Amino acid sequence: MKSLVFLLLGLFAFVPVVMGANAPISEETEKCIDCHSSVTPGIVADWQKSQHAKISPAQALKRPRLERRISVDEAPKGMADHSIGCAECHTMKSKGHKDSFDHNDFNVHVVVTPKDCSSCHPVEANQYGKNLMSHAYGNLQHNTLYRSLVNSVNGVQSFEEGRLTQRPADASTDAESCFYCHGTIVKVKDMETRETDQGEMTFPVFAGWPNHGVGRVNPDGSMGSCGACHSRHQFAIEMARKPYTCSECHKGPDVPAFKVYEVSKHGNIFSSQSRSWDFHSVPWIVGRDFNAPTCATCHVSLMTSGEGEVIAERTHQMNDRIPTRLMGLIYAHPHPTSPDTTIIRNKAGLPLATELDGKPANKYLISKEEQDKRQQEMERVCLSCHSQTWVGGQFARFEHTIKTTNAMTLTATKVLMSAWEKGAARGMAQKDSIFNEAIEKKWVEQWLFYANTVRYASAMMGADYGAFANGRWYMSKNIQEMRDWLEFKLRGPGKRSIQEENGQ
Amino acid sequence: MKSLVFLLLGLFAFVPVVMGANAPISEETEKCIDCHSSVTPGIVADWQKSQHAKISPAQALKRPRLERRISVDEAPKGMADHSIGCAECHTMKSKGHKDSFDHNDFNVHVVVTPKDCSSCHPVEANQYGKNLMSHAYGNLQHNTLYRSLVNSVNGVQSFEEGRLTQRPADASTDAESCFYCHGTIVKVKDMETRETDQGEMTFPVFAGWPNHGVGRVNPDGSMGSCGACHSRHQFAIEMARKPYTCSECHKGPDVPAFKVYEVSKHGNIFSSQSRSWDFHSVPWIVGRDFNAPTCATCHVSLMTSGEGEVIAERTHQMNDRIPTRLMGLIYAHPHPTSPDTTIIRNKAGLPLATELDGKPANKYLISKEEQDKRQQEMERVCLSCHSQTWVGGQFARFEHTIKTTNAMTLTATKVLMSAWEKGAARGMAQKDSIFNEAIEKKWVEQWLFYANTVRYASAMMGADYGAFANGRWYMSKNIQEMRDWLEFKLRGPGKRSIQEENGQ
Amino acid sequence: MKSLVFLLLGLFAFVPVVMGANAPISEETEKCIDCHSSVTPGIVADWQKSQHAKISPAQALKRPRLERRISVDEAPKGMADHSIGCAECHTMKSKGHKDSFDHNDFNVHVVVTPKDCSSCHPVEANQYGKNLMSHAYGNLQHNTLYRSLVNSVNGVQSFEEGRLTQRPADASTDAESCFYCHGTIVKVKDMETRETDQGEMTFPVFAGWPNHGVGRVNPDGSMGSCGACHSRHQFAIEMARKPYTCSECHKGPDVPAFKVYEVSKHGNIFSSQSRSWDFHSVPWIVGRDFNAPTCATCHVSLMTSGEGEVIAERTHQMNDRIPTRLMGLIYAHPHPTSPDTTIIRNKAGLPLATELDGKPANKYLISKEEQDKRQQEMERVCLSCHSQTWVGGQFARFEHTIKTTNAMTLTATKVLMSAWEKGAARGMAQKDSIFNEAIEKKWVEQWLFYANTVRYASAMMGADYGAFANGRWYMSKNIQEMRDWLEFKLRGPGKRSIQEENGQ
Repeated sequence: MKSLVFLLLGLFAFVPVVMGANAPISEETEKCIDCHSSVTPGIVADWQKSQHAKISPAQALKRPRLERRISVDEAPKGMADHSIGCAECHTMKSKGHKDSFDHNDFNVHVVVTPKDCSSCHPVEANQYGKNLMSHAYGNLQHNTLYRSLVNSVNGVQSFEEGRLTQRPADASTDAESCFYCHGTIVKVKDMETRETDQGEMTFPVFAGWPNHGVGRVNPDGSMGSCGACHSRHQFAIEMARKPYTCSECHKGPDVPAFKVYEVSKHGNIFSSQSRSWDFHSVPWIVGRDFNAPTCATCHVSLMTSGEGEVIAERTHQMNDRIPTRLMGLIYAHPHPTSPDTTIIRNKAGLPLATELDGKPANKYLISKEEQDKRQQEMERVCLSCHSQTWVGGQFARFEHTIKTTNAMTLTATKVLMSAWEKGAARGMAQKDSIFNEAIEKKWVEQWLFYANTVRYASAMMGADYGAFANGRWYMSKNIQEMRDWLEFKLRGPGKRSIQEENGQ
Repeated sequence: MKSLVFLLLGLFAFVPVVMGANAPISEETEKCIDCHSSVTPGIVADWQKSQHAKISPAQALKRPRLERRISVDEAPKGMADHSIGCAECHTMKSKGHKDSFDHNDFNVHVVVTPKDCSSCHPVEANQYGKNLMSHAYGNLQHNTLYRSLVNSVNGVQSFEEGRLTQRPADASTDAESCFYCHGTIVKVKDMETRETDQGEMTFPVFAGWPNHGVGRVNPDGSMGSCGACHSRHQFAIEMARKPYTCSECHKGPDVPAFKVYEVSKHGNIFSSQSRSWDFHSVPWIVGRDFNAPTCATCHVSLMTSGEGEVIAERTHQMNDRIPTRLMGLIYAHPHPTSPDTTIIRNKAGLPLATELDGKPANKYLISKEEQDKRQQEMERVCLSCHSQTWVGGQFARFEHTIKTTNAMTLTATKVLMSAWEKGAARGMAQKDSIFNEAIEKKWVEQWLFYANTVRYASAMMGADYGAFANGRWYMSKNIQEMRDWLEFKLRGPGKRSIQEENGQ
Repeated sequence: MKSLVFLLLGLFAFVPVVMGANAPISEETEKCIDCHSSVTPGIVADWQKSQHAKISPAQALKRPRLERRISVDEAPKGMADHSIGCAECHTMKSKGHKDSFDHNDFNVHVVVTPKDCSSCHPVEANQYGKNLMSHAYGNLQHNTLYRSLVNSVNGVQSFEEGRLTQRPADASTDAESCFYCHGTIVKVKDMETRETDQGEMTFPVFAGWPNHGVGRVNPDGSMGSCGACHSRHQFAIEMARKPYTCSECHKGPDVPAFKVYEVSKHGNIFSSQSRSWDFHSVPWIVGRDFNAPTCATCHVSLMTSGEGEVIAERTHQMNDRIPTRLMGLIYAHPHPTSPDTTIIRNKAGLPLATELDGKPANKYLISKEEQDKRQQEMERVCLSCHSQTWVGGQFARFEHTIKTTNAMTLTATKVLMSAWEKGAARGMAQKDSIFNEAIEKKWVEQWLFYANTVRYASAMMGADYGAFANGRWYMSKNIQEMRDWLEFKLRGPGKRSIQEENGQ
């Protein structure tokens, strides 16, 4: 009888580790819940299922180091012995928050930031600050070339008297397009008083809100949003470890990581078997807790063998096991040294990590040695299931694919440059945007969609994307179409492109 | 010991509420099962897992009102005390069914319809009749413009002596293309006698069958198919509440609701955590049963707080929390008043809810007051997890996006009208279809695919679709390509478009 | 108390049938595990969850025939009484393996092949040899037309002095593009000595590795990879039965089977309810174990009714319930007789199963009688849940769709042939590839993507793909664009296509 029950219990290894009674709730949080359990019942109930509700920092610190999810050595002052609830996150650091306001005698701030989370998770917050992601707002907004790409995508076009013109993008559109993922600047722009069930109350009105982009610029000056991956208000490690979280921003044609993963062998195993995996266990034990990697396995999680050997350290820098930047730029190139890529200038003075012909702007990029080191750390993950022969073969192909995709991008670039030279389109020489005409947009697709996709397909072994699904088929067809466009255009009376009047 | 077991039981909140012994089976249904458990074993076993098999109407009526799934006050005559099985649905209302036939001494009808289901679910059937969906067949088939779009998509083209021509679409193709979702007219066209394991038997032969489209025109004169969402023969509320059901028809580039949902934060939480949700509970309790909305949460389900407060009423009208019609039309506009949209005429006399320049045909559309009321009901759902600040910010962006996407559609329309004027394509002035030439098809993609997608991305916060995945990138690129097409075409000898001979 | 526990146990029908103690491990495998549990902990742990670890061949043979997963009548010599572990698969047949090498006194081979698996699964290995899939390498590589398609997709293009040229594809690119799924030739090209944790060791270096393509040509001369569907090292029948496995290769625009399935009613039921299905049970019982088919249900699995009647036999030939080849060729046509399609020649002498106008090369294709027989076997699967009326209606539409999609392909082919005749593109008459120019690529998309997709959508009732999602919308639009391209091109000075110098 007992054995049957234990047998069943064994099947439930994936149930949250800490069950049963929750940690005691602080007086302050109790007060928040008093109202909010009826004002916003969804998030209160959600939080009650979280680790934050279940375990106090003091209890968490009693665990062996490898099993800990917090990275302080002692609990933050006054927060040791109760759960981490509403008040702990929304009031403790309100002083530094420009969005803090008086709310039923609490000094509350709406936007919880990496700085807030760093009370208990300082190592993660610090690592994340070195991650490209934390700079995602500025790296897009303050790169003049990229900003003009944003305009060409988001700006409203008009057609009057045979001419197309395009307005620059507005903030509202940007916020739900590119900057939904990259992050907005969140600012209090006003205060407003509203009638509520609890009577008249005053609340801040925000610009750039709502947003949980990875590079959000917060009212306390910090950058990022932990909630981008650790979704409110459970903040479950389970979710961050599942690829669906990454897919919020890494699924489209420009960054098809999730789609490629889905059709890979790893993705298949995840889809087929993950309901019996343990997504809660810390550390994450290969083979026991899961039998194929998710995004987090290779890029973030603390992973050990069943014998307790550390195979990969936990990291929130994420790119520190990535030697080459594959996406979002015209050519793949060694990873940038600094997470702030606005400092980069190529020899032509452009804010790009390569020249237009693909040569890397080495000064701003990691060295071959650093690339090799990162590669080796990634390979350690692979080697927990694959032989060196397998892994070596895979990475040799990947290296080759970086070269061939860059070569195809160079070919497309040459066709475009020919169009610029012959006056079929207007480029930098004419001080026009290089992203707004039809052939320029085809060129962007060549690298931003197709070359990218092929590289992802290679890196993660998702074959359909290497061949037909936005892969080599399109990479190859697109160049033919650029060439034909050029032929058709040059036959015309040689008129300037209609964007001439365009304000961009 | 006991506590362990109860602990485990607690984990199984998602197991169907009514377990154990099924309700007694009627004599008639018993007879059906006698043969059909070996003739069609799959559906008999499937039904046995259904609520219909587990609980009788009389038992169902003993539940508190909020927990009921049936909307009668007393059980239909003769159906109170046994399960709802084969005979109950396939014979009780056979008189009104033109598809009823004699089958082993039963007067059976094949096609079960909303009228049949209304025996126990009259409120739902009635609401559904006010839903646009119930009119999906006629709204497509009897709108002359839309019918010509169907022809241009489904008709077979031929190329002879340098000329392309296109036949109108045939019924078989229509039935597995547009009308698979919109619904077919299901009619008995003949009877046939077949040798079966039970000897010679006679069965009806149908036109328009199989089909379970939302606007199916049934042999009893009713419109719709409850099985479109409540899949046979479990009719599980679990399925209707999961977004996969909606995705059967709302996933393609014309209606990418499911895809957008998938990459939204809500969709991520659903994908990552829904295996621990309770999809069977009635009412559906926010936070306890689920911690992110599915399609049903916002558009259909009865939702309450843990304290029993009704946050949203159950509705099968579905569009009664939707102020604006986003999809399937050239411009977004206030929702139509009547579910029968074939009555609509714009000022130009076209069966469209807006003019070609986007001005709404207000006479047929709901008022600003009704829009505001619907919006508020939708916001109540949002507010169970989000602050008013969040919700207000989100909807302000959405309003803006409706305007900018309409503006982009207007620009594309102007390019097309210029093509018509200059003779580069043949439009209404030439009494030609406005959907059959290459540039017209690009124009259709501008609104039917791209503007639509951007609006969905905005409404549900699925960013990839706001930017690259059929979103603003394509909205912006497509206009440039339309313009280039026009330039290339006008350089020619001015020949009429080759569709001139086209019969459409 | 007991009843509660049994109730819970009942809910776990999906737990692997054989639980508890594993079968004894052979001495040889024990030695492998000694090192590999720390060298490759992931796969050792994975294997420990497999049926191979849990049950010995002798135990397996004690089961009733219908429940068996092995197809020998007695256990292979020396393998009866212990689990099937590392040594059993990687050493027993090493003699025939050109990749075998000395590894800690074992004669080990890296690549496990259908020939290895046939020790216990000879029927399946034999059937698979008759499956088109087992010949997927040669059918692509040794068909001159198809090989030139591969080159046009995978070859790197260059643009110099206004001319585009394309190099033939290289082996590394092929291996992660087309041949990732089709299979590579795996060969030992060298041996290398590496420093390992266990000291200096020597390993083979492979060409064509890693790969688990369905038509992999193995170092023991066999063709195929069981691991393509039965993923290492659990080899779980659960995985092979889930559609995610098929989606590894059948999801892209050329073979969108999985995508179509996803939006079908069957796919919806799978997504919504399969977590309560039993994917481990052999035989697979319709209605009890599952209530909608997956790919395996219709094409592979042994399926019975609850009363034990066999509805479909297990088959690893897979195409033996498929009358018509829908995909991968210019026109749909009766299935080829031989799995080796390189023997096919049409009347024009081309390695195609139809003429360029669609007429089938009947000599190499199955007869109408064989088609009817296959169709009937497929219908038996359908009829376990659907009436003959439903099934007949569905297949009538499907037949019609094969005709209309072929007709649309013929139209596109005529436009292309007109382009060849008028010198707008270079085709076979000019001994040029028929896949490398822009209009030729559009033509390829007409059949390889769009006609294909529409046929899948029809076969599996996934409506979105029948209408907009790569379906009839694109089939219809693409022809218009081919026509316009031809018009624009013919207006030029009549220059030869720039591919003239292309080495293909």
